[in-house]
Amino acid sequence: MAAIMQTTTRNTDWLLRPRWIIPGIPVGTVLQDHALQISDGRIHAVVPATTAAPHDHTLELPGHVLLPGLVNAHTHAAMALFRGLADDLPLQRWLKAHIWPLEQRCVAPDFVQAGTRLAIAEMLRGGTTCFNDMYFFPQDTAAVARAAGIRAVIGAPILEFQTPWAEDAADCLTQAEALLQEYQDSPRLSITLCPHAPYSVADASFRRIHALATTHGLRVHTHLHETATEVADSLRQYGMRPLQRLHRLGLVNERLIAVHATQLEPAEIRQLADSGAGVVHCPESNLKLASGLCPVQALLNAAVPVALGTDSAASNNNLDLLAELHTAALLGKLSPPDCTALAAADALHTATLGGAKVLGLADRIGSLEPGKCADLIAIDLRHPHTQPVYNPISQLVYAATANQVSHVWVDGRLLLREGHLQSLDVDAVLATAADWGQRITTACSAMPSSD
Amino acid sequence: MAAIMQTTTRNTDWLLRPRWIIPGIPVGTVLQDHALQISDGRIHAVVPATTAAPHDHTLELPGHVLLPGLVNAHTHAAMALFRGLADDLPLQRWLKAHIWPLEQRCVAPDFVQAGTRLAIAEMLRGGTTCFNDMYFFPQDTAAVARAAGIRAVIGAPILEFQTPWAEDAADCLTQAEALLQEYQDSPRLSITLCPHAPYSVADASFRRIHALATTHGLRVHTHLHETATEVADSLRQYGMRPLQRLHRLGLVNERLIAVHATQLEPAEIRQLADSGAGVVHCPESNLKLASGLCPVQALLNAAVPVALGTDSAASNNNLDLLAELHTAALLGKLSPPDCTALAAADALHTATLGGAKVLGLADRIGSLEPGKCADLIAIDLRHPHTQPVYNPISQLVYAATANQVSHVWVDGRLLLREGHLQSLDVDAVLATAADWGQRITTACSAMPSSD
Repeated sequence: MAAIMQTTTRNTDWLLRPRWIIPGIPVGTVLQDHALQISDGRIHAVVPATTAAPHDHTLELPGHVLLPGLVNAHTHAAMALFRGLADDLPLQRWLKAHIWPLEQRCVAPDFVQAGTRLAIAEMLRGGTTCFNDMYFFPQDTAAVARAAGIRAVIGAPILEFQTPWAEDAADCLTQAEALLQEYQDSPRLSITLCPHAPYSVADASFRRIHALATTHGLRVHTHLHETATEVADSLRQYGMRPLQRLHRLGLVNERLIAVHATQLEPAEIRQLADSGAGVVHCPESNLKLASGLCPVQALLNAAVPVALGTDSAASNNNLDLLAELHTAALLGKLSPPDCTALAAADALHTATLGGAKVLGLADRIGSLEPGKCADLIAIDLRHPHTQPVYNPISQLVYAATANQVSHVWVDGRLLLREGHLQSLDVDAVLATAADWGQRITTACSAMPSSD
Repeated sequence: MAAIMQTTTRNTDWLLRPRWIIPGIPVGTVLQDHALQISDGRIHAVVPATTAAPHDHTLELPGHVLLPGLVNAHTHAAMALFRGLADDLPLQRWLKAHIWPLEQRCVAPDFVQAGTRLAIAEMLRGGTTCFNDMYFFPQDTAAVARAAGIRAVIGAPILEFQTPWAEDAADCLTQAEALLQEYQDSPRLSITLCPHAPYSVADASFRRIHALATTHGLRVHTHLHETATEVADSLRQYGMRPLQRLHRLGLVNERLIAVHATQLEPAEIRQLADSGAGVVHCPESNLKLASGLCPVQALLNAAVPVALGTDSAASNNNLDLLAELHTAALLGKLSPPDCTALAAADALHTATLGGAKVLGLADRIGSLEPGKCADLIAIDLRHPHTQPVYNPISQLVYAATANQVSHVWVDGRLLLREGHLQSLDVDAVLATAADWGQRITTACSAMPSSD
């Protein structure tokens, strides 16, 4: 059984008539009695419903809110196959006794394809139309994303040490260049360079990354200031904090995608703002691994672009951006205690246009504006837990769940219809995932126990 | 259209054959290849599947986990009608400019019935089989809960000042006694006394509450140490912290249900442990209102019984105990930072047997043991976001969502079948909630703006 279905995702023009439209710009706007027209894969117009011309493909969405597709700005998609394998462990034991040995045993192109397909099924089902990935065998991630029709930013991971994918950092960069050649003209895929983290990449490699990124105008996607330990280790090894080190290497600029950023001094927030770099907030992963809190409201106050990400299903344990949005909005009020921080509309912005901006895609996606790609979703609020509706933005951020996403379009192609995936065969995806679950369980039992 | 359907909730004996059973005791146990037999509304046996006798009503649950029904240990159910009405506001402005004036205008028996029905629809749909409520017109909450078939602990709220329900604290106590008379022999309902909070109830009333609770063996359910302001105000007004004040009034004992408890000194944790009092953790409400963090792991270490609650949909904004469990398990690792704190199985315990214990119902519900009431739920893990399955407890706590709850039994009666409510007409519930949404919107627009 083929896991990818090719038949039902052709591009169609649509007239959508939802109960509410949240265009995303200006932040906090809610339109009622409006219609949205999709033409040639792009948003053609958002107009008062009474002025919309009759249309062959009209979709009535009487209890739904229409909004930009969600942008998951930090994933390791294929790791969905490790979901729930090892929870509630200290970070270093989790990595060294579980994740890294398993990756050595299991990760290969077929693993990455199966895991990415599982991840995309979950993401499309939950309203994510674009994800920003970092994982081994990125060419396989790219192929699966292209076939499924989702938008993706595919990162070539770069580490000094040997991995199942590459010998060393030089090999990573060679493969990154090949990936770039292959996908440079792809309509829905773009490529980034992903130095794994300051502690796993040497200065010489960062310099090569900087040169390659500058030549091709690529974004650089990296874990940065994830934990206090990372910062302390860098101070010991390099005599400076990781952000300062990247700054000296020329990497702190408008193309930097800095993930986590739980350890930031006020001067570093200003430095990020001045550089134009973006930050990806991953609240659930930061909580689960006890990494710390990203100062989201302070970053927004300083006009640093902030995106939202789930991180991998091995440290979350889902790729549910609506749930992440809920957590982000709640957690954003904790420190310093302030009920008014990260208000619902601002939180939603991080999951849509904020994400697009951090990924360098704000000219194409992130808001419902004429001329942008038709990446958008409908969410049906006619469920007990999202009624009554005083403000649909509040319902989305504080109450709605992924299963309420009814329709998903990417580039105008309908990829989720009434909750059913159109470009992936979910039964085949689940069967393959279950097979991998068995293989991984067997691999685990063959590993020397270090718990 | 009647919102309550009486026809399909008759008690039936069942043989359930799920993929996994989580009996809840010992904590962390997962059974495979077992079956559970329900007889006369009670759990008759949990046996290896091969030894289960053939049964007329056998239900195969091939991808499901069967577990005790979830216990939502702190609600104001009827406030579901205020869901999302006023978010991201400072607590005192939220209460004084929005919630309290609206309650004066809107809260009446029909409001409480409609709101409670909406709340119960959401709770049953999400696997909650028992809730512990505190709101005005508790006799109406009780009537709706009884008709819907859910288990409930109904609290009579006690405040010094006039409310839509009562003139003063004495009137509240008179009505509480009447409620007690009416429901003392009810199979699924029990009654508590609910002094609203130390700051809204005087010593004389607490003494009367203590006397009545002692006479009838009632639990006392109250907000306690919700915010630092509450503690500071008490120090100013009474020269002692609220817990100390309740202790002097005789109320800190094994019948106390202390909700929130975000401000606890080590000596107070020991005092709670010595007294046998229970704590209800409401993480999402505490985050949304920026109240603080309940020290859950420290309470568990001290053997204080801990339950989990959503609080009201006006400060959450849902009554989704699985989502609350996810938040609790993640947030439990934050302070002090510890990835191993509030591990998945311990978190699940707070939502099941921990809740039952705090409510005084552990002899009847909270675990799947022969002789206990058949309050149990099935959750279907065959979705992309909960696959593969290495440990179903991890999937429940860190990945599963309310819509995966497929079946719910209370006292052996099937109240949710394949995701469909059996004792409530959800369309009627939603229509009534929408009507109330309009009425409340109108009431808001007639209120003097104090924002």
